[in-house]
Amino acid sequence: MPTFDHTDLLLPPEPGQRALARELYALAAEQPIISPHGHVDPALLAEDRPFPDPAQLLIVPDHYLTRMLLSQGVPPADLGVPTRDGSPVETDGRVIWRRFAAHWHLFRGTPSRLWLEQTFRTVFGVHTPLRPSTADALYDEIAARLAEPDFRPRALFERFNIEVLATTESPLDDLAQHAKLAADGWGGPGGRVVTTFRPDDVVDMEFEGWSTNVDRLGDRAGEDTGTYAGYLAALRARRAAFIAAGATSSDHGHPTARTLDLTPAEAERLYDRGRRGEADAADAEAFRAHMLVEFARMSLDDGLVMQLHPGAVRNHNRWLHARHGRDVGGDIPQATEYVHALAPLLERYGNDPRLRLVLYTLDEDTFTRELAPLAGGYAALLLGAPWWFLDSPEVLRRFRETVTESAGFYNTTGFVDDTRAFCSIPVRHDVARRVDAGFLARLVAEHRLPMDEAAETIVDLAYRLPKRVFNFGGDHHL
Amino acid sequence: MPTFDHTDLLLPPEPGQRALARELYALAAEQPIISPHGHVDPALLAEDRPFPDPAQLLIVPDHYLTRMLLSQGVPPADLGVPTRDGSPVETDGRVIWRRFAAHWHLFRGTPSRLWLEQTFRTVFGVHTPLRPSTADALYDEIAARLAEPDFRPRALFERFNIEVLATTESPLDDLAQHAKLAADGWGGPGGRVVTTFRPDDVVDMEFEGWSTNVDRLGDRAGEDTGTYAGYLAALRARRAAFIAAGATSSDHGHPTARTLDLTPAEAERLYDRGRRGEADAADAEAFRAHMLVEFARMSLDDGLVMQLHPGAVRNHNRWLHARHGRDVGGDIPQATEYVHALAPLLERYGNDPRLRLVLYTLDEDTFTRELAPLAGGYAALLLGAPWWFLDSPEVLRRFRETVTESAGFYNTTGFVDDTRAFCSIPVRHDVARRVDAGFLARLVAEHRLPMDEAAETIVDLAYRLPKRVFNFGGDHHL
Amino acid sequence: MPTFDHTDLLLPPEPGQRALARELYALAAEQPIISPHGHVDPALLAEDRPFPDPAQLLIVPDHYLTRMLLSQGVPPADLGVPTRDGSPVETDGRVIWRRFAAHWHLFRGTPSRLWLEQTFRTVFGVHTPLRPSTADALYDEIAARLAEPDFRPRALFERFNIEVLATTESPLDDLAQHAKLAADGWGGPGGRVVTTFRPDDVVDMEFEGWSTNVDRLGDRAGEDTGTYAGYLAALRARRAAFIAAGATSSDHGHPTARTLDLTPAEAERLYDRGRRGEADAADAEAFRAHMLVEFARMSLDDGLVMQLHPGAVRNHNRWLHARHGRDVGGDIPQATEYVHALAPLLERYGNDPRLRLVLYTLDEDTFTRELAPLAGGYAALLLGAPWWFLDSPEVLRRFRETVTESAGFYNTTGFVDDTRAFCSIPVRHDVARRVDAGFLARLVAEHRLPMDEAAETIVDLAYRLPKRVFNFGGDHHL
Repeated sequence: MPTFDHTDLLLPPEPGQRALARELYALAAEQPIISPHGHVDPALLAEDRPFPDPAQLLIVPDHYLTRMLLSQGVPPADLGVPTRDGSPVETDGRVIWRRFAAHWHLFRGTPSRLWLEQTFRTVFGVHTPLRPSTADALYDEIAARLAEPDFRPRALFERFNIEVLATTESPLDDLAQHAKLAADGWGGPGGRVVTTFRPDDVVDMEFEGWSTNVDRLGDRAGEDTGTYAGYLAALRARRAAFIAAGATSSDHGHPTARTLDLTPAEAERLYDRGRRGEADAADAEAFRAHMLVEFARMSLDDGLVMQLHPGAVRNHNRWLHARHGRDVGGDIPQATEYVHALAPLLERYGNDPRLRLVLYTLDEDTFTRELAPLAGGYAALLLGAPWWFLDSPEVLRRFRETVTESAGFYNTTGFVDDTRAFCSIPVRHDVARRVDAGFLARLVAEHRLPMDEAAETIVDLAYRLPKRVFNFGGDHHL
Repeated sequence: MPTFDHTDLLLPPEPGQRALARELYALAAEQPIISPHGHVDPALLAEDRPFPDPAQLLIVPDHYLTRMLLSQGVPPADLGVPTRDGSPVETDGRVIWRRFAAHWHLFRGTPSRLWLEQTFRTVFGVHTPLRPSTADALYDEIAARLAEPDFRPRALFERFNIEVLATTESPLDDLAQHAKLAADGWGGPGGRVVTTFRPDDVVDMEFEGWSTNVDRLGDRAGEDTGTYAGYLAALRARRAAFIAAGATSSDHGHPTARTLDLTPAEAERLYDRGRRGEADAADAEAFRAHMLVEFARMSLDDGLVMQLHPGAVRNHNRWLHARHGRDVGGDIPQATEYVHALAPLLERYGNDPRLRLVLYTLDEDTFTRELAPLAGGYAALLLGAPWWFLDSPEVLRRFRETVTESAGFYNTTGFVDDTRAFCSIPVRHDVARRVDAGFLARLVAEHRLPMDEAAETIVDLAYRLPKRVFNFGGDHHL
Repeated sequence: MPTFDHTDLLLPPEPGQRALARELYALAAEQPIISPHGHVDPALLAEDRPFPDPAQLLIVPDHYLTRMLLSQGVPPADLGVPTRDGSPVETDGRVIWRRFAAHWHLFRGTPSRLWLEQTFRTVFGVHTPLRPSTADALYDEIAARLAEPDFRPRALFERFNIEVLATTESPLDDLAQHAKLAADGWGGPGGRVVTTFRPDDVVDMEFEGWSTNVDRLGDRAGEDTGTYAGYLAALRARRAAFIAAGATSSDHGHPTARTLDLTPAEAERLYDRGRRGEADAADAEAFRAHMLVEFARMSLDDGLVMQLHPGAVRNHNRWLHARHGRDVGGDIPQATEYVHALAPLLERYGNDPRLRLVLYTLDEDTFTRELAPLAGGYAALLLGAPWWFLDSPEVLRRFRETVTESAGFYNTTGFVDDTRAFCSIPVRHDVARRVDAGFLARLVAEHRLPMDEAAETIVDLAYRLPKRVFNFGGDHHL
């Protein structure tokens, strides 16, 4: 049985750099986790019920896993992924687990492998390597743990040393789970679990049911969204409600990074066209683009940090979407342009240090050419961590290698996990901390940075920067 | 005279990783060569005649070499590259060889340098380093070897430990050389030398003489290509003939990766327009795009693996093309889009595990952003090895670094040499194996993969994966 | 107080490679500096006056520094950057210096940090690390040095071991400073300080005041620029004057790399339209594109090496431009296409070894895909060093890793500093030499190149190649 030493996981193999990296990593490892953006279901922590079986917890909802098996011909239904039409899927957790274990070799060299393996070890204390032959043993060990009270969500939250976790909700959400969290002393402004304002479903005219959603937005906010002015008022009202539920940021997931600074009259015409069902794709793009500028304007008033996640072609895998719906692994990145796309917003508010706009990307080709020069030249811009397909050791390393020279460390936000997989939060942050330790160790080994400054930087990246950037308090030289 | 230790060629310099890489490389080195795609002339092995002089063998036909000298002002005619109009070129092998040796420093740091140097050493047993002053000595040594029976093509094939080699032919080819090979026990289904179905010259309306070629296709297949239906029937007939000659795959070299799923009526209209000589560039692009979907459909019936090589701007160097013709080093890569381009084909057949579509690229910017997410999310897609300008140690390494985290190892095909330079086949595969060994050694050294799994992976990449992906038999956990 | 060993700055940390790199670097370090392109004010060396205070010398004019502070909310006026309307800015050098020191941590991991730190040490002999607490001490030490005669520009030029430095002037410039330099034995053909012909302000119809500039060009050249023929004659005359002032190259800073080979009649029509104030953006782009071909034609006659710097979106930061003008850090790179853009020029002159066209880029995604294949396939093309946002250790390393395999070393020009910061010239060249030494050391350590060839190559890159490419004399095997 191969043994697998994890102390030096991901640290540079060359002994001199490894020694430096160990020292730096140790400083990062003890920092609490700031998770400023992600998709954990707030009900998980509001209700604090035991987790389901290992497969339902770790495999079925993780599209990194199910898409890889799909790529080798295993249909998602065989792994328990629910169908839109309710046609039957595999429900036996053990069967799913075994099926997954039989394909474990597919994940060699992937972050999913790291995350799962470290979750087994550090969350569940299970050290048996996953193999087809050990699948049942692992399943049983993890299932036994999940039955223990120490493995309920809130207990794990404490054990994970999470200081604050932001979930993501639509303006249509009633925030009842966050109200429950606040009532329990876990939520609300300055709380441990807060929300994020994500208005795509009421902003993107191409979103299924947009116009109906806008009606519901009016009802929820007590505003008349029959007019554009009422629409803006409703959005402002919901932002206020989100802020009351602890939100410190908004998030925007658009196909592109396009922004557009329309006059109110132009925006109103677009809005009305959309509400009459007459908007075409160009109208929808223009309206999304304009609304980014509108939200920047609102942020100047209410202080929400803006996050922009552009570049996903949603539901590229049509068969998967038709059968299993959204967000099950069928999205694919596309080339994303920022320099011209962001110009209108930046012309308006780019030099205003009261605005904070955090940019993410699925297109690492933009790191050096576009993102680092922009973040290093505009007061309002910051670079979020590598996102989604890019939240992996190799890309985290390349992110530092390609972004630091033009933008420095302090125009980046520190790590953002963006995950719905609650149990993987510690390992995801751990991976980023290890990679940053390795990068800083190289700078030290190449005499580009003295050790004391590297030590301050690693703690900034792990803790102080995300805390400050996302307005979770803290003051510091940053 | 500097000595040059080749045992550890390309293995990571850090001693810890080098030790691991040596161990892994040793496992790969003993595997037979699977060469699933390339451009070796089948006559070479069918006729098994002695090779010509060293310059005619190693320099004149190698456009990696002649284009580099052209870039420094040495005209290809001075290196013996034949002209279209028959105007005279250098024919004295020794003169060509000396001229080349005088520019040997241009190749420092290039794969051509590695390939040639290793060919001298491992194929011809010549250890004198090439210099202007040693040019004649090397020429004489190699010329002497080429006269020996052990240096005939079939003898080298055996010595190279090639298990199977696929050449590439047009549907217009009569496959006579492959018939001869089959008669000699070297070819045919399951044989050592097989063909590949490459229909560009009868598919691409912009190909010189397309319409005439389509007439000849009808003659060759005994079908009436006056109609679109007859054209499809002729293609199907030729595919059957190629399969009978051992083909397991088709290959498609298009300017872009565009696919289009037209109705038969639409396709027929395009075809007729082309046949009437009325097709414009957009028609040609649409027809190529549609035919990729059509060939995917045929593959579901006859089982040929599809290969797509997009992104070359053919004959970019117009002077070179006018003077010396096609395929002499005048092509240049262009930016290549896959996500939207492949969507029509993928919507139709992307989730069908019976289809295997191997994607290549000349645009490494797409590795992380497009190719790895696509290959890691569709059952039909696999990633071929870095191609042409990219089949070099640095890019082979970057390929693993950028592709593995989203696609894993098992959505890649293993190495594909794609060469017409028969004598360079062993070193090209050797280079890829060394680079993979180095990459896997790093994963082990960073505790991301245990050694036993790395050992299994290196053998999969070197042998089992290409054998299975390209339907050369073999069964395994893959 | 941390100590900071600079002997091995930027050399690979692994001891084996470091030893090789040290040996190679030592060979490069003793070479004189060839600075074939940059923006040092010739008045500096013509007048040889003492430098102003440390802040005015090192901070105020360096937009790498002021833009980083702007990105964190510090307005350029607070750092003394002059305003267009003359509204007041900070003028107290010590205040500016302290403000800068307070943000020194922003530069961790950036080339600006390296350049400044090494300038402090190697130019001024100041070894105190910069900190907020040491700001005054450093300021005083550097100010004291600047008062000494050894720190005047010409004395530093000698100490820096610069063999030749090319400044950059407009055809409208009277070249009086260069005449003064020639009179002092410092300038003129073959001199130590020469000029470069940079005609953007009389070529780019979108340049502020283009038509007026063209009038002035006619006056300066004694030609009638009322006609296109007179315009060309004026440009030729100014080129001759520049050559008489020592110029060996021209430089062209265009938004794109577009070239266009118009007939004289077409070009004339465009020119006339521009002169009548009727040209639109497409006309301006076409005229720029055509003029590149025209300048190539002139180069065949007069021997000036062409340099092309495409891809900057000028004045992207509109607020910064409105307040502080051009060239103060408000430009941002954009994606840049070369393969199709350069085709017209290359079709005409690409295979003519008498033309030398040096390509630069702000878009490193083109290194492997476009620039290396082009430079490795056309006699006229060479690749300049990584430029501007890319002139940093990580990109210099990636440049070699991505370009060498297709273009070799000898289709690159060696390092080009392109700086106006005179005191940073030695460290910028030093950084490039160290990175090249590290890259070559890796090739040696991986047995891809013997040490003697690496040693020859590092000297070629540091000295012989730029000297020969830019026609500063020297002959060699190159």
